[in-house]
Amino acid sequence: MNTKDYKILIDKKGNKYLFKGQDVHTKFGVIKKEDITNKKTVHSNKGYEFRVVPANFFDVYKKIKRGPQIVTPKDIGFVIARTGINKNSAIIDAGGGSGGVSCLLSQFVKKVYCYEIEEKWVNIINENLKLLNINNVEVIKESVVGFKTPEEIEMVFLDLPNTINVLKSDFQGLKKGGYIVCYLPNVGQVKEITSFVEGNDKFILEEVTEITKRDWNMAGIRSRPFNTQLVFTAFLVFIRYY
Amino acid sequence: MNTKDYKILIDKKGNKYLFKGQDVHTKFGVIKKEDITNKKTVHSNKGYEFRVVPANFFDVYKKIKRGPQIVTPKDIGFVIARTGINKNSAIIDAGGGSGGVSCLLSQFVKKVYCYEIEEKWVNIINENLKLLNINNVEVIKESVVGFKTPEEIEMVFLDLPNTINVLKSDFQGLKKGGYIVCYLPNVGQVKEITSFVEGNDKFILEEVTEITKRDWNMAGIRSRPFNTQLVFTAFLVFIRYY
Amino acid sequence: MNTKDYKILIDKKGNKYLFKGQDVHTKFGVIKKEDITNKKTVHSNKGYEFRVVPANFFDVYKKIKRGPQIVTPKDIGFVIARTGINKNSAIIDAGGGSGGVSCLLSQFVKKVYCYEIEEKWVNIINENLKLLNINNVEVIKESVVGFKTPEEIEMVFLDLPNTINVLKSDFQGLKKGGYIVCYLPNVGQVKEITSFVEGNDKFILEEVTEITKRDWNMAGIRSRPFNTQLVFTAFLVFIRYY
Amino acid sequence: MNTKDYKILIDKKGNKYLFKGQDVHTKFGVIKKEDITNKKTVHSNKGYEFRVVPANFFDVYKKIKRGPQIVTPKDIGFVIARTGINKNSAIIDAGGGSGGVSCLLSQFVKKVYCYEIEEKWVNIINENLKLLNINNVEVIKESVVGFKTPEEIEMVFLDLPNTINVLKSDFQGLKKGGYIVCYLPNVGQVKEITSFVEGNDKFILEEVTEITKRDWNMAGIRSRPFNTQLVFTAFLVFIRYY
Repeated sequence: MNTKDYKILIDKKGNKYLFKGQDVHTKFGVIKKEDITNKKTVHSNKGYEFRVVPANFFDVYKKIKRGPQIVTPKDIGFVIARTGINKNSAIIDAGGGSGGVSCLLSQFVKKVYCYEIEEKWVNIINENLKLLNINNVEVIKESVVGFKTPEEIEMVFLDLPNTINVLKSDFQGLKKGGYIVCYLPNVGQVKEITSFVEGNDKFILEEVTEITKRDWNMAGIRSRPFNTQLVFTAFLVFIRYY
Repeated sequence: MNTKDYKILIDKKGNKYLFKGQDVHTKFGVIKKEDITNKKTVHSNKGYEFRVVPANFFDVYKKIKRGPQIVTPKDIGFVIARTGINKNSAIIDAGGGSGGVSCLLSQFVKKVYCYEIEEKWVNIINENLKLLNINNVEVIKESVVGFKTPEEIEMVFLDLPNTINVLKSDFQGLKKGGYIVCYLPNVGQVKEITSFVEGNDKFILEEVTEITKRDWNMAGIRSRPFNTQLVFTAFLVFIRYY
Repeated sequence: MNTKDYKILIDKKGNKYLFKGQDVHTKFGVIKKEDITNKKTVHSNKGYEFRVVPANFFDVYKKIKRGPQIVTPKDIGFVIARTGINKNSAIIDAGGGSGGVSCLLSQFVKKVYCYEIEEKWVNIINENLKLLNINNVEVIKESVVGFKTPEEIEMVFLDLPNTINVLKSDFQGLKKGGYIVCYLPNVGQVKEITSFVEGNDKFILEEVTEITKRDWNMAGIRSRPFNTQLVFTAFLVFIRYY
Repeated sequence: MNTKDYKILIDKKGNKYLFKGQDVHTKFGVIKKEDITNKKTVHSNKGYEFRVVPANFFDVYKKIKRGPQIVTPKDIGFVIARTGINKNSAIIDAGGGSGGVSCLLSQFVKKVYCYEIEEKWVNIINENLKLLNINNVEVIKESVVGFKTPEEIEMVFLDLPNTINVLKSDFQGLKKGGYIVCYLPNVGQVKEITSFVEGNDKFILEEVTEITKRDWNMAGIRSRPFNTQLVFTAFLVFIRYY
């Protein structure tokens, strides 16, 4: 079964289950694979109704294997929209982790070089790339410090413990005017990075920001934001190579 | 001069000026076009220094003609990352306005159909497309209500006063499982739309959210968020076509 | 033992336990009442250390019996600071619920009239008042609709399902220039209330706002906001009686 | 004319003007003092209508002379509600600045000791205390470092450049279990203070937080948060003396 034929089953609560050709097990019962056709709804063996929609990339993406911390679409989305990259760009993602960032970015650029040093994660990335049917991500099992790319790249996305080592390194391949975007969970890292950048004429510090997403529960007269939500993921630092 | 050769001049305050082959006039003096070469810095006639970097798409994008309200990169970015669209997608943007959304989305998808009924805005969109050297946006001078596209589309972005009319219309071309994303500045509109959608089995209401961006002023020990900022643009409603 | 002699025991994690003269049971073991003297630290039977501080009103307040939803200090605090009330004011709190709002406000005003119609809650309020040693709250087992107070009051705090009935009622006692503050969890209620007020020359709509509190985890270089937090409690609507 | 007889005039836009017995000059014309009686409305010489309400403390407070930065009611309110202080408490406010914090806190506690070293600000504080008819604030023209109060105090509010000097000093008078609340505009200060506190057994770090207030423009179907607002004032650090 091709990824194009994957489907999403949605229960009454809005929970989604990915159908890749197998029986689907849910807390509201099992849906037999042979029952999942082109009808809009299907019923589990317990009699619950599920809506059926063709899966898109993002549906499948949300089901990939992940590490403990993931970069959220609100953050990746802003990076995509704001760094001037496009369908023709080559970019770097490091460290790869479970490959989430590379997978998502691969949909909007020509080529992603994904640096990851740990075997364990490299394997997970490859699994995820396969599941998502992605072939424009090249996994490089090396440190991104001192990177050297075969083609000119336009953006480097860094989600690393020692981001500063990349900035200090003698890297090659990043286009003049391109970006190094640092994803930094702690304010101490932001300070370390921005202090370094401001004293260095290879770089221009363009922006330090944080993106927040607040979801609303729309339910007639009782519409309101959900009470408890994720309020912080990381700071984004946009550094222009110069 | 090709858009690829455009440059950005950055003054000491971080203000950016777009160089498209002309003399650049700034509040810190004039920079003669013949002085803007491949050097990293240039001086104005008043002796102020400017850094020079190659302009990317986003730099030029920020200088296009705009209407009174624009959809911000934080919002467009989240739409890009979350709707499963990609380099091969065709999408709709309506109403076009100054074309900002179409221009930005055009960088990440195959084709944008931009609906705009007002002559005045159609002209501005065309101007902006030309400035940005974009050729995968087709401007359609019609209402998006009851749209009918020549190819299957994956996402419809609606920033319109009467969004609900599109949902009620007998449109054709939107892929099953595709999205209608409503950009709604007022909570009353959100309520109207979500109430309509919840009683309609053509649609699944997936998410109502708002994205906020908070910028930080990093200045050594005095680092802090900027005091006054944009705290609200619009609600984003993600409706899945089913 | 007098409330003035209550103490707070704090474990290594920052959890607080209220000592009112009894043995204190914690997840890190039991602390015998006779061990809790004026020393700065005490040990449990399992050998864990606890810091001991004299309890203040707020420490005890946090341990009172509560209903499912409570008005948070960030919201009550803003009401206190912004409505012009003071040590000499009489005010109304309705509906009383578990009495949390009345208890906290009682510390800063002369008199609180607490309206609550349900026997069950009235009993809990009385219990909480006793625990906190408060004697300037008068519990009135009646609906606040059409209230009539023995003395002039300066502020009415309403946390009720049918707030609008109070506004529509022929109440007596609220000072001209005083406030009705509505605590409204849903945006639909805000709309209903504000529409009513704007067409009524007895009232002036001064402000509709929401207060958010974001806590930081300060831990050296790893300082950052906590990831998941309470992001919404209710809207506050400030209506001036005129 | 007594402060109790002050009035507030409100124009069509919601702007407020304080009447202390004089003619009131507004952008919609002049209102003669003799016209301001107990009627609900009054007209200016240009024919505009103004609503008239008795002024409360907060109305007058908003008209006092202020320095460049003021502590906002959202922040002071949370401090009031959360530190266990009440009508019987004595507290310290330092540095006094224009006296705004002292004036507002004076309404809810027994006594405020306001430390301010600059003659210029001491004079402004005294002016403001007079305007607001406050007599439980004692202005002390000294540094708060090493403070020594005649009576036991329950809370120290610090809005100072060198907050840490107070923490390091050999102060006397703060009750065991009482609070030192630091109002810190910069994250670097927060780090300095919290690092110091965590290594010092005189103090317990209870909370680092920031309070945000988002105002809504309620206008029928067009209800929404105001677009641009104050998003940051300062961090609040609650340190318990132990």
